[in-house]
Amino acid sequence: MPVNLTSPIKDDLLPIAGIKLATAHAGIKTNDATDLVLIELAEGVATSAVYTQNAFCAAPVTLAKQHQADVSPRYLLINSGNANAGTGEQGIQAARASCQAVAEVSGLPAESVLPFSTGVIGQQLPVDKIVKAMPELYQGLAEDNWFEAAQGIMTTDIVAKAISKQIDINGSTVTITGMAKGSGMIRPDMATMLAYIATDAAVEQSVLDDMLQRAVEQSFNRISVDGDTSTNDACILMATAQVQHTEITIIDSLDAQNLYQAIVEVSQYLAQAIIRDGEGATKFITIDVEQGEDNEECLQVAYTIAHSPLVKTALFASDPNWGRILAAVGRSGLDRFDLTKVAIYLGDVCIVDQGEPATTYAEELGQKVMDQDEITIKVQLGRGRANETIWTCDFSYDYVKINAEYRS
Amino acid sequence: MPVNLTSPIKDDLLPIAGIKLATAHAGIKTNDATDLVLIELAEGVATSAVYTQNAFCAAPVTLAKQHQADVSPRYLLINSGNANAGTGEQGIQAARASCQAVAEVSGLPAESVLPFSTGVIGQQLPVDKIVKAMPELYQGLAEDNWFEAAQGIMTTDIVAKAISKQIDINGSTVTITGMAKGSGMIRPDMATMLAYIATDAAVEQSVLDDMLQRAVEQSFNRISVDGDTSTNDACILMATAQVQHTEITIIDSLDAQNLYQAIVEVSQYLAQAIIRDGEGATKFITIDVEQGEDNEECLQVAYTIAHSPLVKTALFASDPNWGRILAAVGRSGLDRFDLTKVAIYLGDVCIVDQGEPATTYAEELGQKVMDQDEITIKVQLGRGRANETIWTCDFSYDYVKINAEYRS
Repeated sequence: MPVNLTSPIKDDLLPIAGIKLATAHAGIKTNDATDLVLIELAEGVATSAVYTQNAFCAAPVTLAKQHQADVSPRYLLINSGNANAGTGEQGIQAARASCQAVAEVSGLPAESVLPFSTGVIGQQLPVDKIVKAMPELYQGLAEDNWFEAAQGIMTTDIVAKAISKQIDINGSTVTITGMAKGSGMIRPDMATMLAYIATDAAVEQSVLDDMLQRAVEQSFNRISVDGDTSTNDACILMATAQVQHTEITIIDSLDAQNLYQAIVEVSQYLAQAIIRDGEGATKFITIDVEQGEDNEECLQVAYTIAHSPLVKTALFASDPNWGRILAAVGRSGLDRFDLTKVAIYLGDVCIVDQGEPATTYAEELGQKVMDQDEITIKVQLGRGRANETIWTCDFSYDYVKINAEYRS
Repeated sequence: MPVNLTSPIKDDLLPIAGIKLATAHAGIKTNDATDLVLIELAEGVATSAVYTQNAFCAAPVTLAKQHQADVSPRYLLINSGNANAGTGEQGIQAARASCQAVAEVSGLPAESVLPFSTGVIGQQLPVDKIVKAMPELYQGLAEDNWFEAAQGIMTTDIVAKAISKQIDINGSTVTITGMAKGSGMIRPDMATMLAYIATDAAVEQSVLDDMLQRAVEQSFNRISVDGDTSTNDACILMATAQVQHTEITIIDSLDAQNLYQAIVEVSQYLAQAIIRDGEGATKFITIDVEQGEDNEECLQVAYTIAHSPLVKTALFASDPNWGRILAAVGRSGLDRFDLTKVAIYLGDVCIVDQGEPATTYAEELGQKVMDQDEITIKVQLGRGRANETIWTCDFSYDYVKINAEYRS
């Protein structure tokens, strides 16, 4: 079960003026859950997007990038149950036909539709089912459907992931609502991590792009590893400009910083929710690496720990086998690594001090930390002033079960 | 159970003149298995060693390197059940005391002893048990104890790993016998992979060093990832010069090549045996990456596939979910990666051709390959002429079980 994460309540998710959503059961998923989501953006909504870096990116990603380069997006069409990845030219045609189906009901060009898919890789998308469900889907568009949409994009997710925040800008209340799906545990490289965040604030396009890039770096790109490299990953930020305040055109302004901070908080909540709902996760792990020469080496150490199946299984077993953490730090490959400056903490318990086992350490102290379901591992490198934090989860029987039986 | 691997038969393991071995139950392991092995090298035996690259290398590794730099090794002392890693200065003292115990029974200096430890990280070595067992251990030294020694170095290994080969050099029969332990599955970064290979051939030191370095590259450094970075990993090659033939002094000679080839075969057998006995392994996987620009990028792609928990769980489930292989290739991070030149094979079944799903592929063809317990994944990059092969195994419930319960 998800670690300290429950589904949002419908009433907690605030609508964003200028954004309508609808869901349908098209029959792409084998169960009777909703599997098709349409998001309508009012004219004038500024949209920013980041996509997977995977060389084998999925057909919908390829097409979404093309469409976004052509015209300002007016619809986002998301199907769950099938990733339309590894599907070659036929997959591109299917994604194109999906967009065309939206074009026919809306009267807008197909290029104004961004397609997204999530689910099994390597099976052709049943586009006829999407076409058939479109008229009813279109009819259902409404501003207060964030909760239903968050459910519609789920695959192996156990709970829906969505949140709203409100801040004040120039005396006006600005709302940010975001939703995400993803349950990759070790690394979300199964198709897919998807996130959609909208605000009714007015933000100039280049500032919006900048905010999204930086917010993703502090959230979705800090959960386990390779969060940015599935075939389908995407994160979309929309600003509808429906609240009356002066448009934000400078990233350094106080208003921009307030809005940016709220977007980061929404992004981190969603990113951490993906970890909390990680496949088979029983623990939520924060890894802090401090005193690095630069951020890159902090991440290198953090990911080496986060990726170690031995560390992750020890966390699952609540076993303070801290030697596995030490071994992971030792093999993380830093240049001129001076062990005598390294300190490692499990929660607030020092396990390694100046490169040696801490004299104050006792097994029962480590056990007490390990028994918790939220654990922080902190490494101080003693090399500089850079810090990084990432989030991951443990590695359980259920992870193997979920991924071994995913298609059966 | 190990994948197509059974224990060697005692009579199949040929003694090497100049090498004696003994085992004892010192009580370091909690069960009543043997946990202490002594190997005696006759005077004049040439010894070459490679050790872990892990910055946090274990106390015995630190000491073994020092000792080997000082004098020619005459004894190898190996304990299982405790890695003596992450044990700080006290660990160094314990390793030193172990060597001293050998010095006292043998009359040779402690520096002539190389210590090795394998087992749990972060617990102090019960050196008193080693000291106490030493006289009886020393009494047991005999040339025909390779089988017993192979058992004595086991930790989570299910079967012992050892093999002998014979070749002809200048009309003389030369024997090579090797043994190894290790059962790391995803990556043998738990302490420890240990391997000891001896031959009665006469090989000049620099040639022996060269042979070991290259043989390790083609075997132990080609199983899963980070095989070279546990805190305790070591591989030792010994040449006793007890067979009458002209000493091998040039690596390019025909004799050297024959001997080298046999050493590679022994090393590959042992390295693959570690994978076959991988923790929870149910399948033995060969990953061939061909047509790379250089060997480094071939390994980069191969390890990305080998490390993917999603690929490994699909292999465990015999699920031809080849999209996960494709996704792994796509995120392996090659520069200027032209997908239209990529082909991927599952066994002899083409799944991706020129970057597109192969038109000849059908699920039942993939299923037939996946149902086997030895599976080859081949990736052709279409970028150059470099090739690399690595070996790995699948990822099962039992891997989690073994590593979660390792200390309980």
